[in-house]
Amino acid sequence: MTRSQLAAAIKANQSFLCVGLDTDMDKLPAHLPKTAEGVLAFNKAIIDATLPYCVAYKINSAFFEAMGAQGWQVMKQTFDYIPATHLKIADAKRGDIGNTSHQYARAFFEVLGADAVTVAPYMGEDSVRPFLEYPGKWTIVLGLTSNPGSQQFQRLKLAPAADELLLVPNVVGAQRSELLYERVLQQVAEWGSPDNLMFVVGATQAAELGHIRTILPQHFLLVPGVGAQGGSLQQVAQYGLNAQGGLLVNASRAIIYAHSGEQFARQAALIAQQYQQEMQGYLLADKD
Amino acid sequence: MTRSQLAAAIKANQSFLCVGLDTDMDKLPAHLPKTAEGVLAFNKAIIDATLPYCVAYKINSAFFEAMGAQGWQVMKQTFDYIPATHLKIADAKRGDIGNTSHQYARAFFEVLGADAVTVAPYMGEDSVRPFLEYPGKWTIVLGLTSNPGSQQFQRLKLAPAADELLLVPNVVGAQRSELLYERVLQQVAEWGSPDNLMFVVGATQAAELGHIRTILPQHFLLVPGVGAQGGSLQQVAQYGLNAQGGLLVNASRAIIYAHSGEQFARQAALIAQQYQQEMQGYLLADKD
Repeated sequence: MTRSQLAAAIKANQSFLCVGLDTDMDKLPAHLPKTAEGVLAFNKAIIDATLPYCVAYKINSAFFEAMGAQGWQVMKQTFDYIPATHLKIADAKRGDIGNTSHQYARAFFEVLGADAVTVAPYMGEDSVRPFLEYPGKWTIVLGLTSNPGSQQFQRLKLAPAADELLLVPNVVGAQRSELLYERVLQQVAEWGSPDNLMFVVGATQAAELGHIRTILPQHFLLVPGVGAQGGSLQQVAQYGLNAQGGLLVNASRAIIYAHSGEQFARQAALIAQQYQQEMQGYLLADKD
Repeated sequence: MTRSQLAAAIKANQSFLCVGLDTDMDKLPAHLPKTAEGVLAFNKAIIDATLPYCVAYKINSAFFEAMGAQGWQVMKQTFDYIPATHLKIADAKRGDIGNTSHQYARAFFEVLGADAVTVAPYMGEDSVRPFLEYPGKWTIVLGLTSNPGSQQFQRLKLAPAADELLLVPNVVGAQRSELLYERVLQQVAEWGSPDNLMFVVGATQAAELGHIRTILPQHFLLVPGVGAQGGSLQQVAQYGLNAQGGLLVNASRAIIYAHSGEQFARQAALIAQQYQQEMQGYLLADKD
């Protein structure tokens, strides 16, 4: 799915919602068997019910790997079930030396058929490039995440470059120090383009989205942390929307576990629809 | 496998070699079928042949994921085949928000039966803790990796802390700036102990191992990059060995692809033995 196709889907559905399939076998409704088949039936029902209200699905690979080989089968079957009208994201947080990242890219893009995969940046350029080199696919690199641990390393202040010091040699602190995540966003943006590269920016840091938009005016941002993690959709839309939409806001638990009984899919649809309606308001307001 | 058991194995085998199973179906010897069964037969033959010369095996999950669900089956069967005398490492570079890292820990420690898993640090403490909380298991966090991309972020200079600035307000650069990877090593070390936490330190940075040993005198270091990536075993041993051995030096391609014909396992054993004999020399020298 190309960037313009994604922008068109956002316009058509009046939604930038991504439904996160963090399907935990232990949390299936009681009427479904706690088996791989039960998980697949759950995923299919959630997809059927939420399709009109979202533009993307994000499969969290951890929950499927915890089922072993069967989990990979279900992950594949779930990707196969999502129609081509919707972006298929593998949330896998991979990244390794070049020859190994190439194998991960094969696994997610070719074997599983994902359109996009999330990638961790710590190992640098050769760990990210093999994903970017897949034509027609998206690489989504972690920028500023939504969890408490994002404070530890992502927000570390970097030392000013030597030439910056020469400008203000005796006024330490006169400039705002660059943070690690800002460097990651700027540097990684040079390795791809807004047509094949997105970034993860957590909704729990919504006030910083406006600042991030000045660094990345064009890129799509995948925003987790709305819902169970407490982020505000209103703030995310206010600071993050751009001309193409430019946002994919993910909600997982708030939608898929909205109800624990036989009505789970219907209730998931209602919650997804609430997100969609709220998003429609922001899309219309943004257009004005 | 506990730290003292690992130290005892290093002493008994006179080796700190880890054999890396980066098994690529496309590189199997011609007499083996290019199927999951062929990959498993290859792994078993490599394990049988190299067992006396190493203390650990490291399975690179990417190469198995590229085979899909069957690959996870082969990964499980390979872990099952490795005897309890040897440490079983899943090289998976995982890490996500807490509830998701918990699922990854289940996948690797419970479902696959690994003793250890490699983890990426970018997402911080809550992304690492779920691995550390597994009793009797090891978490191996990326510190300074062996690839070219380690230059981009891992070596970024951090701004000095405010109290350090007060000491030398007008002498910018008087202190050597802390690097990101050094902060990662020091901070992550606080979350576990040398009994459940190791770090990845690339052999291509061997001269820095001595420095890293001053930060982490006790921890085991998993050292990739010897062999195909060009690191020097002699330097790694010189700078990295401690009283428990403290090193696991990994070689993957140099061993498993030492020969492309029917003699692949015998040739792998010969190369592994060469590593072991060289290591024995360093272990004896270190004892003096």
